[in-house]
Amino acid sequence: MKENKIPYKTYLDESEIPTKWYNVRADMKNKPAPLLNPATLKPMTAEELSPVFCDELIAQELNNTDAYIDIPEEIQDFYKMYRPSPLIRAYFLEKALDTPAKIYYKFEGNNTSGSHKLNSAIAQAYYAKKQGLKGVTTETGAGQWGTALSMACSYFGLDCKVYMVKVSYEQKPFRREVMRTYGASVTPSPSMTTEIGRKILEAHPGTTGSLGCAISEAVEVATHTEGYRYVLGSVLNQVLLHQSIIGLECKTAFDKLGVKPDIIIGCAGGGSNLGGLISPFMGEKLRGEADYRFIAVEPASCPSFTRGKYAYDFCDTGMVCPLAKMYTLGSGFIPSANHAGGLRYHGMSSILSQLYDDGLMEATSVEQTAVFEAAEKFARVEGILPAPESSHAIRVAIDEALKCKETGEEKTILFGLTGTGYFDMVAYEKFNDGVMTDYIPTDEDLAKGFAGLPEVNL
Amino acid sequence: MKENKIPYKTYLDESEIPTKWYNVRADMKNKPAPLLNPATLKPMTAEELSPVFCDELIAQELNNTDAYIDIPEEIQDFYKMYRPSPLIRAYFLEKALDTPAKIYYKFEGNNTSGSHKLNSAIAQAYYAKKQGLKGVTTETGAGQWGTALSMACSYFGLDCKVYMVKVSYEQKPFRREVMRTYGASVTPSPSMTTEIGRKILEAHPGTTGSLGCAISEAVEVATHTEGYRYVLGSVLNQVLLHQSIIGLECKTAFDKLGVKPDIIIGCAGGGSNLGGLISPFMGEKLRGEADYRFIAVEPASCPSFTRGKYAYDFCDTGMVCPLAKMYTLGSGFIPSANHAGGLRYHGMSSILSQLYDDGLMEATSVEQTAVFEAAEKFARVEGILPAPESSHAIRVAIDEALKCKETGEEKTILFGLTGTGYFDMVAYEKFNDGVMTDYIPTDEDLAKGFAGLPEVNL
Repeated sequence: MKENKIPYKTYLDESEIPTKWYNVRADMKNKPAPLLNPATLKPMTAEELSPVFCDELIAQELNNTDAYIDIPEEIQDFYKMYRPSPLIRAYFLEKALDTPAKIYYKFEGNNTSGSHKLNSAIAQAYYAKKQGLKGVTTETGAGQWGTALSMACSYFGLDCKVYMVKVSYEQKPFRREVMRTYGASVTPSPSMTTEIGRKILEAHPGTTGSLGCAISEAVEVATHTEGYRYVLGSVLNQVLLHQSIIGLECKTAFDKLGVKPDIIIGCAGGGSNLGGLISPFMGEKLRGEADYRFIAVEPASCPSFTRGKYAYDFCDTGMVCPLAKMYTLGSGFIPSANHAGGLRYHGMSSILSQLYDDGLMEATSVEQTAVFEAAEKFARVEGILPAPESSHAIRVAIDEALKCKETGEEKTILFGLTGTGYFDMVAYEKFNDGVMTDYIPTDEDLAKGFAGLPEVNL
Repeated sequence: MKENKIPYKTYLDESEIPTKWYNVRADMKNKPAPLLNPATLKPMTAEELSPVFCDELIAQELNNTDAYIDIPEEIQDFYKMYRPSPLIRAYFLEKALDTPAKIYYKFEGNNTSGSHKLNSAIAQAYYAKKQGLKGVTTETGAGQWGTALSMACSYFGLDCKVYMVKVSYEQKPFRREVMRTYGASVTPSPSMTTEIGRKILEAHPGTTGSLGCAISEAVEVATHTEGYRYVLGSVLNQVLLHQSIIGLECKTAFDKLGVKPDIIIGCAGGGSNLGGLISPFMGEKLRGEADYRFIAVEPASCPSFTRGKYAYDFCDTGMVCPLAKMYTLGSGFIPSANHAGGLRYHGMSSILSQLYDDGLMEATSVEQTAVFEAAEKFARVEGILPAPESSHAIRVAIDEALKCKETGEEKTILFGLTGTGYFDMVAYEKFNDGVMTDYIPTDEDLAKGFAGLPEVNL
């Protein structure tokens, strides 16, 4: 096809895998707002957070100053199991689109968890083990995070209790089996195993669950069980820190190739992938060393950035977690049942929320049939069946490349391909059968979510 | 873990991907027996084969003399979509086994088809397109071959009709959806769309199908439809030729690392992966340049090598295909319904059969609960959830490594990890629930299969 140029896939040498995570907060003029204690509405101290999170992870959560944090050797070893991930030049897609744009994607799906989530799961499991804990609890929606955590816990011999949103538990039995194969216990949420679960089931007997509710259950179990802590796969500052390995590898690969991206695109649910992908590039922008366009892509059915409010909100339905300031639809907001992919969290990373509010990045929303059209096109030419979540970024990357075709501009586009869609074939089947529908919440729908926002006057 | 030594993963540069396939037949003193015309019992000519197969593939099928065959540039391009595949040093597994053995595996599962099958699918689709055909037909059991072929056909804009063994079609709806996403039509076999299908359904109304029966349907459709040919994912000489890319990449990577394997292990159903993996190493052995132990691993429930007969047999249930001389259990043999993985074909590649008969390789059989124990162990330490088929090789690699532990020998073991198990979670679930059972056919079971062997007196 195109010879002697950029290779199709660029893998770093193992010796080039980053040995430090990058903490973008160090370079932010406006720091993300702190977590608040829901009882006192004052910033949570490390001590207050310690019944919920591991100590070292709390330190990372609160660290707004150190730009680089060492990756412990044990985690570096584990990273070598599936990293470096390839930076891929999308020659086949470029040809299919007949665009002058140069498209690249960082592919994080070549591991059994099927996504980038493993980058943070292994870090969180490591610190839990180091602290001498017996196990961790968590929630999972689409199942990627739960799978990643069960793999990480199996590696360190930690117990892993996963609360899986009931509708996913029933629709994705195979995800559940992967977690069980890695030794995790998986409970459909809401369940009778927790007080909050019993309360929710009493109030809403037929409920199929939500992420916010599963979080509440996982936190309750962690804080009521000796030797356990709660871990979370997105939203938190620590998670974005761990995920910076995606962007750091990207940056190193681009530097080796002598390429500089113009536009960087990522899907955004809680922000873990997007934050990790853009971090080092955003650092350059914050330090005035380079400029990039950053685009967050979210589903039109759960539009935290594009239609949410920037406010303090609860992170979970049970309101047992600290409050976070973020773009949010309200902790009571649940996307329509026709929504296929993940990216269904009501809020958004505080770091990304601050960057967005400061005008340092853009956001856009896309509808799901358009997303699956992009996914199918991509699968057929690039050979990778993408996760519905990742396909949000593909959609916008294709749209930007088509704009280049109109204008003749040779822009360099990078997007994050966070994972594979092997466990999402029910959604693909709907698309293949032509029965997939779109949903955009009305202003009235959103108003209901906003009505539940807590009053916080700092 | 272990520093400054062999990396965890060795990727060749794109420029090092082989540009020629290696044809092991050129170096075999005893050539594999030719395909016979079932009507005349004489070797099939190219002309006789042309209603079934593409012309160029027939030439490859009959070519016993050229050691190297050029890989067309279009196929080389496609290979760059997912190749080179990594050669992985199993440091984590070695540590878990506490063995002095050095274990390597060639991982072919990092592509959406989930296995090595894509290596031959793209070649067969290319030659079909080059010949100006409209489409191809095939059968699929576990679904890996059908998925690979649908990806390849989508790439070249060819129509793809897949006959999927009915029991798989029903148990693996997600495999079916992947094929549909790539534009293939998928029909459960036996079906009413063919004469042979209708006959079989009449004789066995409740049948859930078999590979041999699906082959008959696919061949019938190919030979009765203008512009179509039949393609096959294993067994044939041409397939082993295409799959030699696995072994060639392996050999190049080992040479770069300065490593020579002592034992090479692969699972064996029809022989495509094993044949491809060992070809260049076997070539060295045949030419007296090096020595290796080769071990074919098959399921105890379908033991073609270890309990089969070396004889001419039908390749399909409908007896419409040419006869092949191979280790076979008889075309009427169907493994017990409790058998989880693929590797359920009654026969075996003619090339491998001849090599085995000449004492140039070994074979062993393993039971499926032991296979899944190995699979789970491997998944937990190496982070890759293996396909049940591949796990047969893992089982024997682990057993050989444990023998090294006893003897203290530092042998170098290579095995082929042909694919991932994401679409095999029903089998994993059985294993996780402790309800998986083993099955070994009795001599009486086998005698029934042997009774159907044709009489061929050459």
